[in-house]
Amino acid sequence: MHAYRSHTCGDLTAANAGETVRLSGWVHRVRDHGGVLFVDLRDHYGMTQVLADSDSPAFAAMDKLRAETVIRIDGRVKLRDPSLVNAKLPTGEIEVYATDLEVLGPADELPLPVFGDQEYPEETRLAYRFLDLRRESLHNNIMLRSKVIRSLRNRMWDQGFTEFQTPIITASSPEGARDFLVPSRLHPGKFYALPQAPQQFKQLIMVAGFDRYFQIAPCFRDEDPRADRSPTDFYQLDLEMSFVEQEDVFAAIQPVIQGLFEEFGGGRPVDADWPRIPYAESMLKYGSDKPDLRNPIQMQVVSDHFRGSGFGIFAKLLEQEGTEVRAIPAPTGGSRKFADRMNAFAQREGLPGMGYIFWRKAEDGSTEAAGPIAKALGHEPTEAIRIQLGLGEGDAAFFLGGKPEQFEAVAGRARNEIGRELGLTDENQFKFAWIVDFPMYEKTDDGKIDFSHNPFSMPQGGLEALSGDPLQVKGFQYDLACNGYELISGAIRNHKPEIMFKAFELAGYPASEVEKRFGGMVKAFRYGAPPHGGCAAGIDRIVMLLADEVNIRQVIMFPMNQRAEDLMMGAPSEPTNEQLRDLRLRVLPKE
Amino acid sequence: MHAYRSHTCGDLTAANAGETVRLSGWVHRVRDHGGVLFVDLRDHYGMTQVLADSDSPAFAAMDKLRAETVIRIDGRVKLRDPSLVNAKLPTGEIEVYATDLEVLGPADELPLPVFGDQEYPEETRLAYRFLDLRRESLHNNIMLRSKVIRSLRNRMWDQGFTEFQTPIITASSPEGARDFLVPSRLHPGKFYALPQAPQQFKQLIMVAGFDRYFQIAPCFRDEDPRADRSPTDFYQLDLEMSFVEQEDVFAAIQPVIQGLFEEFGGGRPVDADWPRIPYAESMLKYGSDKPDLRNPIQMQVVSDHFRGSGFGIFAKLLEQEGTEVRAIPAPTGGSRKFADRMNAFAQREGLPGMGYIFWRKAEDGSTEAAGPIAKALGHEPTEAIRIQLGLGEGDAAFFLGGKPEQFEAVAGRARNEIGRELGLTDENQFKFAWIVDFPMYEKTDDGKIDFSHNPFSMPQGGLEALSGDPLQVKGFQYDLACNGYELISGAIRNHKPEIMFKAFELAGYPASEVEKRFGGMVKAFRYGAPPHGGCAAGIDRIVMLLADEVNIRQVIMFPMNQRAEDLMMGAPSEPTNEQLRDLRLRVLPKE
Repeated sequence: MHAYRSHTCGDLTAANAGETVRLSGWVHRVRDHGGVLFVDLRDHYGMTQVLADSDSPAFAAMDKLRAETVIRIDGRVKLRDPSLVNAKLPTGEIEVYATDLEVLGPADELPLPVFGDQEYPEETRLAYRFLDLRRESLHNNIMLRSKVIRSLRNRMWDQGFTEFQTPIITASSPEGARDFLVPSRLHPGKFYALPQAPQQFKQLIMVAGFDRYFQIAPCFRDEDPRADRSPTDFYQLDLEMSFVEQEDVFAAIQPVIQGLFEEFGGGRPVDADWPRIPYAESMLKYGSDKPDLRNPIQMQVVSDHFRGSGFGIFAKLLEQEGTEVRAIPAPTGGSRKFADRMNAFAQREGLPGMGYIFWRKAEDGSTEAAGPIAKALGHEPTEAIRIQLGLGEGDAAFFLGGKPEQFEAVAGRARNEIGRELGLTDENQFKFAWIVDFPMYEKTDDGKIDFSHNPFSMPQGGLEALSGDPLQVKGFQYDLACNGYELISGAIRNHKPEIMFKAFELAGYPASEVEKRFGGMVKAFRYGAPPHGGCAAGIDRIVMLLADEVNIRQVIMFPMNQRAEDLMMGAPSEPTNEQLRDLRLRVLPKE
Repeated sequence: MHAYRSHTCGDLTAANAGETVRLSGWVHRVRDHGGVLFVDLRDHYGMTQVLADSDSPAFAAMDKLRAETVIRIDGRVKLRDPSLVNAKLPTGEIEVYATDLEVLGPADELPLPVFGDQEYPEETRLAYRFLDLRRESLHNNIMLRSKVIRSLRNRMWDQGFTEFQTPIITASSPEGARDFLVPSRLHPGKFYALPQAPQQFKQLIMVAGFDRYFQIAPCFRDEDPRADRSPTDFYQLDLEMSFVEQEDVFAAIQPVIQGLFEEFGGGRPVDADWPRIPYAESMLKYGSDKPDLRNPIQMQVVSDHFRGSGFGIFAKLLEQEGTEVRAIPAPTGGSRKFADRMNAFAQREGLPGMGYIFWRKAEDGSTEAAGPIAKALGHEPTEAIRIQLGLGEGDAAFFLGGKPEQFEAVAGRARNEIGRELGLTDENQFKFAWIVDFPMYEKTDDGKIDFSHNPFSMPQGGLEALSGDPLQVKGFQYDLACNGYELISGAIRNHKPEIMFKAFELAGYPASEVEKRFGGMVKAFRYGAPPHGGCAAGIDRIVMLLADEVNIRQVIMFPMNQRAEDLMMGAPSEPTNEQLRDLRLRVLPKE
């Protein structure tokens, strides 16, 4: 017989009754039922009930077992009494009467139990990650992650993509975050960088004549801590295609993502209709470039009803250039109580408040508009607003005014809150949209023009468009939004050096700077570059959505804590003097 | 019609004759056949012949094309004249008469041609890697690598393994090479390390209760340059299993590797019989722990025939303790000319020479032994040697003597040379062997005891064995040899802290040092560790064997050069002052 097991702890069923078996696993739980000891023996595959009474040679050893000890037992498979069958366990029809027991790996007193659902501080869980990972929910998340990545790979191959690995120890490939640097020992004083994304390499792969590349790619960004992201590295499904336009990329990736969500979404409906929503429209209707379309609310511009109206605050506001008033319709939200709750929400968001109208049944049985705005506006404009928004008795509308860029984000959050509070958002589904036509440039706080997203995107209209107002230029750049998250970001690339230099010039980068920072890629574009484009999807985010988790550390095997430390392995740590000498580095004292 | 193509350059066959098509690709070659221009248009999928005569609106543009320009053409598919059909090309039955041509990506004068087989210096090829990768053989190697890795993954899943990613920015995980360090910005003065292998993490995964792990894992070692390895990073198929013994690991991995070689070995026979050869036996018979079993020669100890014999050099040598004389039989090598050639080989290897006997037909028709050793030994011992080695007329034997560890490696190389020179080695096949029972410890040059391989291996005989002579202790440690290369290395791990501390103590590491260097893993072993073991296979090496390449840079998309520089991307490079300030580092001047 095998030294450790004839079966796993998930194998045995009634069909094995009477067999002599050998099992190994972890002691999940020991129970003493008056002279009979029961051990739930657990391994990766399942759980099997093992028992011994005082007649068994294994009894004495079993009596001393501590939870999470690793043991090997020999025994006979017995059918359980029908009243004791556990229908929830695949092995629930049987138990194993142990005749021999060997401790393979003893366990000290546990700092963190595996059995049970008790919550423990995350720092303890991270320091003893190997124990936390034995718990069922985390174990299942990690298995889900692996299966998701496998499925992604197979689906990409099915779409005609080939996976290539790009260098990890390489040159800086800036994506807007800080690089992690790696000092070179062979070239002291020089440093490699870990790639923030394989952006330049994947474009070079296209220039090298491979047609459809993908990679489950590790990406490295030295970012300041934030709850929902890993402070050091994360994985992307990275892809690139040659001889394509935007819609070709969409057509290639939609079956991959849709199929993945259908496979692992736990039966939640997956929308097959992925609308294309221009960035400007998305910001207007949803207050976000990653709208949650499970929420049916769409905002509308209602400025005309307020211009020169009796509602002085908005009337005055609208005299300034670039201002607007937008309405958030709130069907079924027509009560003062709800309106007050949303007003309080707006105040928590730092606004003075949020104006509203709600429609109720008047004493004479007709529909009447209520609230201070309705009063100030008067009947006709109020009614026009109601008609424009398609609302009626029992509904409400909320209003925000000013320069859109100043209130859009809050409006978007208010829309989420209203949808959730009123139960309009059916959370039990996945809804997707491609957000397109992103602006190439934006004005920074100090009034300069800078790229608003990826500098490598092809501007719509090419070189010609770049000679007009930069803020009007749109890029062939797109995001995939799902349930309020950005799942994918991508672009058709700028593969023409002259357009690239011009695009960078507008953002204040002289040609010399472009050559210095992206020299490898620019050089390649001079020797026959195909039109190409692609995108990258965040794997951690996808797994979080599928696993219904909000903490990224619940879907990573060995995550850093939020201070970018690995508490189990003790990283980062002090280098030895010899290491520093090899690298010709000195650590400076704190200032 | 699609903006760039209705078909790829590998699609069109006689069935498409008469159709109007659009193709995009690279100008592989332009030929002018007296007023008719032919362009071989190339993309990832194939090559299509495009032509234009002076009646075509595309003629003028085609006349100006430089090689490697990216173009889009519209045209009509025509059957080629039967005499012009190219049976070697899938598209060889047709050509496309171009009616429109657009340059999508112009090309400067090339520093390196794509068409043709001309050799170029490797530094040029690396600096213009995107051009070199367009060449057919390199393109095919990279595609092969991708398919090999895909197949490996699928085969591992089929064997019940699950892939998990382990951290890349982490703590030092020493495997005998230098770590690459990554300075931490959030914790100035502290450093992360890139893992030399996921050794500790995969063991922690087992302790965490996952049963069969694998990963196509990037590994990072700051090694001094050597021709056949990447100076920075490389990929391993890394795997680990719980509740296993050595033979379980062999049973899991053999179908994976054997199947892979059968799939991608280009029809070369793949041996299904993988012998287990103890390390000591392998060193004796083959002079190597990674023997090339395609070569049938096995060395033998022949000391007894020389002890006290008339061949003074060996007789005297054998009086010293620990010495041996070994013979390399050389069937069909029985000529003075061959014997002299091997003697010269030995001198190139730094030996004074290599003694030999060869057997030839004497004038009287009998078999006679020739050469100085035969003369000195006399008939009887010479004949005894011939019989022991199973040799006869027309054969030879070569002899090396001394302390085995001093001549084993040279003997192994001589065996290779003899097998090759005499045509005994059938190179057109793959032969495998598990080398087992590696010694746990070795004596270093300064007389100390140190681990000879992996310190995490379980010593055979456990704690008890560690109380005897360390040099006699064997480990549950194994390598897979294939055609003279080490493809896989692995071990059953030491999962018991008390045996681990004792094993390290023997090698001179106090418990405090073990806790400091491997604290995370040692801690985990105290909370229920299963017996486990695994191995790692070198992906680059596997692809090199399958692609029949000897230069590792021929199987990596974007390799470093041997000075660990990326000439295309310009890595490593000088950091900015701001980066150094963020990390609180100063680069010291050269001493």
